[in-house]
Amino acid sequence: MAERRLVVIGGDAAGMSAASRARRLKDAGQLTITAFERGRFASYSACGIPYWAGGVVDGPDALVARTPEAHRERGIDLRMRTEVTEIDLAGQRVRARDLTSGQEQWHGFDDLVVATGARPARPPLEGIDAPGVYGVQTLDDGQALLDGLEQSAGRRAVVIGAGYIGVEMAEALSRRGYEVTVVERAGQPMSTLDPDMGALVREAMSGMGIDVVTGTAVTGIVTGDGGRVAAVATEDREYPADVVVLGLGVRPETRLADAAGLPLGESGGLLTDLAMRVRGHGNVWAGGDCVEVLDLVSGRTRHIALGTHANKHGQVIGTNIGGGYATFPGVVGTAVSKVCDLEIARTGLLEAEAAAVGLRVVTATIESTSRAGYYPGAHPMTVKMLAERGTGRLLGVQIVGREGAAKRVDVAAVALTARMTVDRMTALDLGYAPPFSPVWDPVLVAARKAAAAVAP
Amino acid sequence: MAERRLVVIGGDAAGMSAASRARRLKDAGQLTITAFERGRFASYSACGIPYWAGGVVDGPDALVARTPEAHRERGIDLRMRTEVTEIDLAGQRVRARDLTSGQEQWHGFDDLVVATGARPARPPLEGIDAPGVYGVQTLDDGQALLDGLEQSAGRRAVVIGAGYIGVEMAEALSRRGYEVTVVERAGQPMSTLDPDMGALVREAMSGMGIDVVTGTAVTGIVTGDGGRVAAVATEDREYPADVVVLGLGVRPETRLADAAGLPLGESGGLLTDLAMRVRGHGNVWAGGDCVEVLDLVSGRTRHIALGTHANKHGQVIGTNIGGGYATFPGVVGTAVSKVCDLEIARTGLLEAEAAAVGLRVVTATIESTSRAGYYPGAHPMTVKMLAERGTGRLLGVQIVGREGAAKRVDVAAVALTARMTVDRMTALDLGYAPPFSPVWDPVLVAARKAAAAVAP
Repeated sequence: MAERRLVVIGGDAAGMSAASRARRLKDAGQLTITAFERGRFASYSACGIPYWAGGVVDGPDALVARTPEAHRERGIDLRMRTEVTEIDLAGQRVRARDLTSGQEQWHGFDDLVVATGARPARPPLEGIDAPGVYGVQTLDDGQALLDGLEQSAGRRAVVIGAGYIGVEMAEALSRRGYEVTVVERAGQPMSTLDPDMGALVREAMSGMGIDVVTGTAVTGIVTGDGGRVAAVATEDREYPADVVVLGLGVRPETRLADAAGLPLGESGGLLTDLAMRVRGHGNVWAGGDCVEVLDLVSGRTRHIALGTHANKHGQVIGTNIGGGYATFPGVVGTAVSKVCDLEIARTGLLEAEAAAVGLRVVTATIESTSRAGYYPGAHPMTVKMLAERGTGRLLGVQIVGREGAAKRVDVAAVALTARMTVDRMTALDLGYAPPFSPVWDPVLVAARKAAAAVAP
Repeated sequence: MAERRLVVIGGDAAGMSAASRARRLKDAGQLTITAFERGRFASYSACGIPYWAGGVVDGPDALVARTPEAHRERGIDLRMRTEVTEIDLAGQRVRARDLTSGQEQWHGFDDLVVATGARPARPPLEGIDAPGVYGVQTLDDGQALLDGLEQSAGRRAVVIGAGYIGVEMAEALSRRGYEVTVVERAGQPMSTLDPDMGALVREAMSGMGIDVVTGTAVTGIVTGDGGRVAAVATEDREYPADVVVLGLGVRPETRLADAAGLPLGESGGLLTDLAMRVRGHGNVWAGGDCVEVLDLVSGRTRHIALGTHANKHGQVIGTNIGGGYATFPGVVGTAVSKVCDLEIARTGLLEAEAAAVGLRVVTATIESTSRAGYYPGAHPMTVKMLAERGTGRLLGVQIVGREGAAKRVDVAAVALTARMTVDRMTALDLGYAPPFSPVWDPVLVAARKAAAAVAP
């Protein structure tokens, strides 16, 4: 049998996981693998960028899981600084441009993996591309930011957007000694939480000396000397800024796929089947931040840019291309984050998300501690739980607390996957010892209150 | 309707939870509640004793969740230092002796809750009751130990038994500046783990300067001046000891129940139905360390003395007595513990436990870290996973690591409850961010390896 040709577009988590996994299952005589990455880094942890920016971890090398050389040694022809500019599905080929030389070339494929990732949302504001305004999506972005911070003399930073990236970057800049203002259009930071839980984040951030301005839309970037950023303008006023970081979230980077006619969902992400094949295309696969995933709680597809999903997608794609069988069943919407010592977590649906898909909920919010109350380091935490009215099925959990709070959300993530009721959860046999939990784990306390709300 | 009379034997977690819950549902005009506790403390955290002994937490008051006075203020007639000496089921009454005055009295009941707890195993060795030999089951025991430590001039401690209590007490005594030797009959410490995982605990304890002697049976306690403990004798040698702590685990305290003819299981614990009624007795309830619980993984009953179960049992009993409806479906065998900064966790079955109930297993052991490898404080951890041959159903997980290791077992506890396969677990949507987890959570890494072992 002739060797098959696998082409991968995008050299980060999903793409290189797929390539690596396929290579483990098929040797070079059976499968050639060519991967194109337009940036200068491959197989890296974009999630680590805020910690690099904050000086908590070294970068960029420490954030690279596997170097291009290491990939090439394993028989993957990884072309760096090479951008795919066109997908020709009918011709089973892609056109790639060497960004250094400018040369373009067509490459044929039998299997194609689209792993083009996401791009930071950049609203069409005046000045948005001015020097001193940074995105933080790629290691190249991170390097540009760090270079910029070194050159900047001033110490005022404005972060636009108070989602995960926004609050993590607020911490990073605060660690670097910046006076940080976060400007958010919504009424509370962390719109991935219900507003009542977001309010707890706001309060904690204010306590850390981070200025959180909410309910305020940015109207433009004001530039000064040499066209460099000078301030962020809102409807109400201007916030002086020596550095501006965009933390507005990301959109699926699917312009190439769209141009080729591949199917996109409501969020603009590629639509795949459970094996991560692009719908309607037997030999085109997609994974990572450029796809939509099935939300197992709502039954809808949604776009969630997260390294852990990208790695799983890559594993599934590589297994299938390598002749095995694997599927990605979907997500339940788990996310964890921190701002300084504040831990933030969610899984499942928010109240508004549940309402949007026709689910009626009861909610319960409780306060407890991470350890037995008498044990040193017992930190308070707030747990909010959503259950379906009538059935009592768990629909979501949100947690805001300190050390030991965030990863407790995993219990709810598994319970959501198993479609447990909150009543069933009250009896869960979770680990108990005074250094690790009160005798009733906070998740169980929330489950008890939610169960009582379901069936008073 | 005349008021009913509830009598509770045992004033700790299960008993007082039941009493408190029943009181919340029925007022004093509907239900009188009398509780008898033979000790000087009620509603306390026995699990906190090792931390009190180690000086990590204050005691004994800090370990008391609710004082006798607070219970009485809520309409529960709690009689301290009063021991029930007989249960007369036919006559629906118990005989109680005031340990101060020696007076005995019969008390009638309509509902009886047996919550007599557990007693530490005390092998019939010469010298086992000598001054300087301590159990650590009750707050009274803890107070006796602390008083003893203050009087003891020497600095050599021997802990007999290397289970949870044993290793926690080894840490406590080590913190107090004792030279600690732990003597264990089995081949490794923590026989609640498979031997290969127990070996990791042994290695870590040795690194902390705690001498762990295994495969060695204690043959007697050697006494010296004034009959006080002087050494612990084994088959091979004597270990000089100024203080000896018994960490041999506990047995259900069911002598009273047995004398009354209530049904006991193979471990000597009371057998109940799902509502926590003693089997065959409509108005006698039992919970906490004196009962056997259904192990949902093996399908057998077993004895597990753990405060979190006792509290759940009390909640169920009190709800049912109070006219509501609740059940305790069973456990999956979760336990977490620590020795200094070492975290130890298990859930489900060990290899030997699986074999004993006819289950054939495949196992997978992996090493990973608590956070992204590049993030500060990323500690190594070892995760062992057991799955059923053929079906791939998860059967158990054991974890040994440092900070952030133990509570990860909760993910497996929920997965066991939901009877998930390890293959299904590989796709679990667990919280990921660099400060909290590698991009593949260690539990997922173990699940991947276990799934590959099930279906190579």
